[in-house]
Amino acid sequence: MVCMRSEEQAAERRLPGARAVTIVGLGLMGGSLARALQPFAGRLTAVDRNAATREAARAAGIFASVTADLAAGIAGADLVILAMPVRAILETLAALPALRPDGCAVFDLGSTKSAIGAAMEALPDSFAALGGHPLCGREAAGWPAARADLYRGQPFLLCRNERTKPAVEAPVLALLEAIGARPVFVAASLHDELLAVSSHLPYLLAAALVGQGGEGEPPAWRYSAGGFRDMTRLAGSDPAMMADIFLTNRTAVLAALKTFSTRLSALERLIATGDAAALHAALGAAQGDFAAYRAALDERNVPAERDET
Amino acid sequence: MVCMRSEEQAAERRLPGARAVTIVGLGLMGGSLARALQPFAGRLTAVDRNAATREAARAAGIFASVTADLAAGIAGADLVILAMPVRAILETLAALPALRPDGCAVFDLGSTKSAIGAAMEALPDSFAALGGHPLCGREAAGWPAARADLYRGQPFLLCRNERTKPAVEAPVLALLEAIGARPVFVAASLHDELLAVSSHLPYLLAAALVGQGGEGEPPAWRYSAGGFRDMTRLAGSDPAMMADIFLTNRTAVLAALKTFSTRLSALERLIATGDAAALHAALGAAQGDFAAYRAALDERNVPAERDET
Repeated sequence: MVCMRSEEQAAERRLPGARAVTIVGLGLMGGSLARALQPFAGRLTAVDRNAATREAARAAGIFASVTADLAAGIAGADLVILAMPVRAILETLAALPALRPDGCAVFDLGSTKSAIGAAMEALPDSFAALGGHPLCGREAAGWPAARADLYRGQPFLLCRNERTKPAVEAPVLALLEAIGARPVFVAASLHDELLAVSSHLPYLLAAALVGQGGEGEPPAWRYSAGGFRDMTRLAGSDPAMMADIFLTNRTAVLAALKTFSTRLSALERLIATGDAAALHAALGAAQGDFAAYRAALDERNVPAERDET
Repeated sequence: MVCMRSEEQAAERRLPGARAVTIVGLGLMGGSLARALQPFAGRLTAVDRNAATREAARAAGIFASVTADLAAGIAGADLVILAMPVRAILETLAALPALRPDGCAVFDLGSTKSAIGAAMEALPDSFAALGGHPLCGREAAGWPAARADLYRGQPFLLCRNERTKPAVEAPVLALLEAIGARPVFVAASLHDELLAVSSHLPYLLAAALVGQGGEGEPPAWRYSAGGFRDMTRLAGSDPAMMADIFLTNRTAVLAALKTFSTRLSALERLIATGDAAALHAALGAAQGDFAAYRAALDERNVPAERDET
């Protein structure tokens, strides 16, 4: 299906207050956002340090400009979107006041939000800044994996800070509507605590498990099925992105690890003692937790949820 | 597509040495085996304790007889296939000599193999017995989820014991060929050690994680994505089946848990100390392990692997 849209229609649908949008970082997230925004943003600029990615992005024909030069790329932007690993976002936020003495609206897609929120609050008052974290992904990474429908129907967490103003919140909400994502506001500290359990801890379990599955001869993975595959998929994540997550969410991750160890030890004790009834009850409780989670997930997939914090 | 087969062809393709096959337990595994065997087995009998399952199995029209009575169901069988949780298999093996004083060929689909192997070795010499464990599954369970193609292209682990003779091995290998599964021989003790890592440990991680994701308000799973979904899927497994696995593979599971805790603690220390380079290196190693596992998996999907032990 080819979708035809006149110049007038395109102009009408431009993001309010954001005639010029610059996306810094053309990985899966930044690239997918660019593809999804193409029909809506007046002037889309991309900044990426990787020459091959820039070439591929130019060939896609969706950017007014693609550059390796951060200063040049963000010079004329109404809205700058930072789509890199967390520590690269922090470095860029620190450099912004010198690069844009006039200020601008800034939004990010980083995986942890407290450190980024603090860095946004350190910006001069001429900036308007809002933190974001889309809850979606693919196993494949990078610009080649980017797709316009990645965000459609998915929750997009938003974390306000002291620099959050209508000048950034209005265009970002318009942007999320344009790409079909569902905005969910949450405090940055709560975001980091919850994601430590729902995302950062699961990655660590996958990383530890995949190594254990590969040690010895024969390695256990030779005799594995779909369960092991599911449980190790996250271990394929980009180490730089994950290291940044752990370095900027240390306290919450260590707390999540401690709780997990306690829970795992409780199961271990039931196995060691061999109490069949107690073990069956504990595993039945886990199945109950699983059913409750899946029911909540189905409920969440109803459109237009909006948690205000 | 409708597959037409003449009576003559069906007779030709019958399993060598198994004119009458009885499957005990019509869950996902037993039910899928029945559906896959229908064109090949001369006379297929089913035994199941659940009345609704028996009714549904009768309605499917693939069994010569469906009964709740184990003694009646296995009375005329050349090959008895036990497709229940491990402890139910052990109980049935213990009852077999009284039920079949003449002996017969016995095969099972249980998830752990050492205890079952020992129980098979305790059978009189009139029996021929082989252990099996198909490495496949679905999220859905029970007879309604059974499908004829479940085993196609999947590894099917086989564990010999002192009661293993051509009288059971020949029809079982013919059976696996008929359903398109790939036989892989492995010693029962090695099976249990490896599956402790590739299957039993992953389930425990999922069970502990899903509980942690649901505690507190808001629960972390409200802010979760595909990673958490993958990492908790196994927690939906049948508690009775899983409890039996842990009660019959305690030593290997406890050893796997110990190794896992050591590996997880090593990652925890790197996060606690905040050494960015060392953390990045460790996560890079996990990504390398993941890539090696996936490459091995692709290789395994080449047909006709056969490990002799």
